[in-house]
Amino acid sequence: MKVLLTYDMEPKYLAQLKEILKDGELVLKKGKEITDEDVLTANVILGNPPKGRLHENADLGLVALNSAGSTDYCEKGVLPDSTVLTNATGAYGIIISEWMSGMILNIMNRFPEYRENQKEGLWKRNMAERQHIYGAKVLILGTGNIGSEFAKRMKAFGAVTIGVRRSSTKSVEFFDEIHLNSELDELIPEADIIAMCLPGTDKTAHIMSRERIFSMKKTAIIINVGRGTAIDTDALNDALREGAIAACGLDVTDPEPLPQDHPLWKAPNAYITPHISGGMNSPVSRGVIAEVAVNNVKAYLGQGEYRNVVDRETGYKISE
Amino acid sequence: MKVLLTYDMEPKYLAQLKEILKDGELVLKKGKEITDEDVLTANVILGNPPKGRLHENADLGLVALNSAGSTDYCEKGVLPDSTVLTNATGAYGIIISEWMSGMILNIMNRFPEYRENQKEGLWKRNMAERQHIYGAKVLILGTGNIGSEFAKRMKAFGAVTIGVRRSSTKSVEFFDEIHLNSELDELIPEADIIAMCLPGTDKTAHIMSRERIFSMKKTAIIINVGRGTAIDTDALNDALREGAIAACGLDVTDPEPLPQDHPLWKAPNAYITPHISGGMNSPVSRGVIAEVAVNNVKAYLGQGEYRNVVDRETGYKISE
Repeated sequence: MKVLLTYDMEPKYLAQLKEILKDGELVLKKGKEITDEDVLTANVILGNPPKGRLHENADLGLVALNSAGSTDYCEKGVLPDSTVLTNATGAYGIIISEWMSGMILNIMNRFPEYRENQKEGLWKRNMAERQHIYGAKVLILGTGNIGSEFAKRMKAFGAVTIGVRRSSTKSVEFFDEIHLNSELDELIPEADIIAMCLPGTDKTAHIMSRERIFSMKKTAIIINVGRGTAIDTDALNDALREGAIAACGLDVTDPEPLPQDHPLWKAPNAYITPHISGGMNSPVSRGVIAEVAVNNVKAYLGQGEYRNVVDRETGYKISE
Repeated sequence: MKVLLTYDMEPKYLAQLKEILKDGELVLKKGKEITDEDVLTANVILGNPPKGRLHENADLGLVALNSAGSTDYCEKGVLPDSTVLTNATGAYGIIISEWMSGMILNIMNRFPEYRENQKEGLWKRNMAERQHIYGAKVLILGTGNIGSEFAKRMKAFGAVTIGVRRSSTKSVEFFDEIHLNSELDELIPEADIIAMCLPGTDKTAHIMSRERIFSMKKTAIIINVGRGTAIDTDALNDALREGAIAACGLDVTDPEPLPQDHPLWKAPNAYITPHISGGMNSPVSRGVIAEVAVNNVKAYLGQGEYRNVVDRETGYKISE
C-alpha cells in the first residue's frame, strides 16, 4: 500500500497517519516534485494531485482533496470510476466566513478610505450615512458549511439571514428563511448584502447575471468566495462604474488570476483579494483537512466510514 | 418649559417630542448656532451643549447627552447639582462592535496589503501564517454595552471572551470569564486580542501602561474604541516599531485629533480611524438616542422613569 501526501501535514496528524499505515509506504511530495510514477502507483492520494494521468491508475482507491471545491476532479475521465473522492468540506467554513464578515465590515466602516488618509496624517471624518450589518437583509447563495458559518456570524450581528439553495427548503440552522434558486429574481432586489459561496458547476455559472446584478439595491454590497464564474464579471464592472450597486468584495474572479490590465481592478468600490480566504496557511483549516485525511485512510483500510465523500455527478458532498 | 435640541432628530421621534411638549417651546440649534441665552434659559437640553455656562442655569432640570461618554459633564461645577444627566448608553454598542470586529478582521485578513496590490493590478498571495478570531483569547476591557455587544460577536466567531471590569466578578452574558482590573497583569500576556472600550476617567488613564503593552504576546492585536488616554501612546508606538506586538487598531487616540506629524500615523501595523466608530451618521445610533431622549423628556414631566442616568461621581451609568 502506497500513500502520496501532497501538502504539509502537522506532525501530530502525520504521526497518526504513519501509525495507521504500519508497513505501508508514505511519499511526501508537493507541486512539481510529484512525478507521473507517483500518481500512477499510489493507492491513496491526500491532496489535490495533477489530474492528467490519474485515470490510468486502476488501483487508485481514494483521493482525499485538501480543497472544498472538487469540480475539477469530477469531470468525466479524470478519475477511475472506482476511486472514492472526498473533499475538505468543513475546513474552510470557519476561516472563509471570517473573510466574508471582515470584507463587509471593511467596506461599511470605510477602512480603505481612512487608510489613505492615514498615509497623509489626515484626521478627517467622512460623515456620510453609514451602513450596518445590524438589521440588514443578507442573502446567502449556498447553505453548506461556508454559508452556514457565515449565517451564524451574521445572526450575531443582528442581520436577517436568507439562504438560497438548489433543492429542499427544509430549515437550516442560523437561517431565518430558506428559498430555492428559482426564487432569486424576487429575492435579489430586497437584499442589502448578497453573499456568494457556490461551487463552480454548470448550474452556478453566471447565476448572478447582468439582469440580476442590475436589479440589486443601489446601496447593496455583493461578496463572492465561491467561484468567480458565478458572477457575470463584465456586468459587475459596469454596475460598479454606473453606481448601480454600492460595492463588491471578491476573493474569486473570472478569469483567475485576474489579469493586470483587467478593468475590474480599478472599478469604484471593488475590493479584490487573490483567492486567499480559504488557504492552507491557517492552523484551523490544516487541522480539519488532516483529520478528514486520517479518517479516510482508516476507512480505506476498512476501519470506519469515509467522511466528505463527493457525488461525482453533482460535485457536492453526499449528505452524511 | 423650554427644550433645546442640539442634533438632528428623525421626524418620527421629533413628532413624538412635540406631542409630549404640547405648548412647551422647542428650540432646534446645532454647534455655533447655540447662544448663551439658549443654554441659560433651557429647562431641558437634548444633546451635548457647550459647557461653559450650564452651571449658571439653576432651572436646568435635564441634560440628555447624545454621547455614551459623559465625563466632561461630570466635572465639578459644570452642571448645577440638581440637574439630571443622562447618556446615550445603548446607542453605540451595536455600531461600535461592528467597527471593532471589522478592524480585527481587516488586520487578520491583510486587506490593507491586498488593497495596495490591487492598485497595481497585482494578483499576489501572502501565504504567511494567518491568525483567526476562531480560537483566539479575546481580553475585553470594559463590560458595558459596547464590550458586551462585542463579546457576543466574538463568541459567534468561536473566540474565548474574557471580560475585565472595575468591580464585581458576577457573570455577564457572552463572557466566558469575568475578572477585575487588578488581575490585568496576569491576563494581558495570555491574550491574542485586547479590546479596549473604557470611558475616560482617572482610573483608566494609561491602564495600558508601557510595561503592560510590552508584556503582550508578539502576535497580539490591540484595539481601542474607548478613550485614547487609556493607552500609553508613546509606548504603543515603540512596541509597534520594535515588533513587540503585531498590530493596533485605534478609533481614539491621545492626543485627539492626532497631529499630522505624530509618529503613530506611520508606525508599522497601526491602523487609525478618526473617532468615527460611534458617530451619529447611523440610523441605528440615532434611533436609540432619540428613544432615550423622548423617554427622558417624559420622565422630566413626571411620566415614567428616567433611562441612562449617569452617576456624576463615577461617570458611569447607574445600574437600572
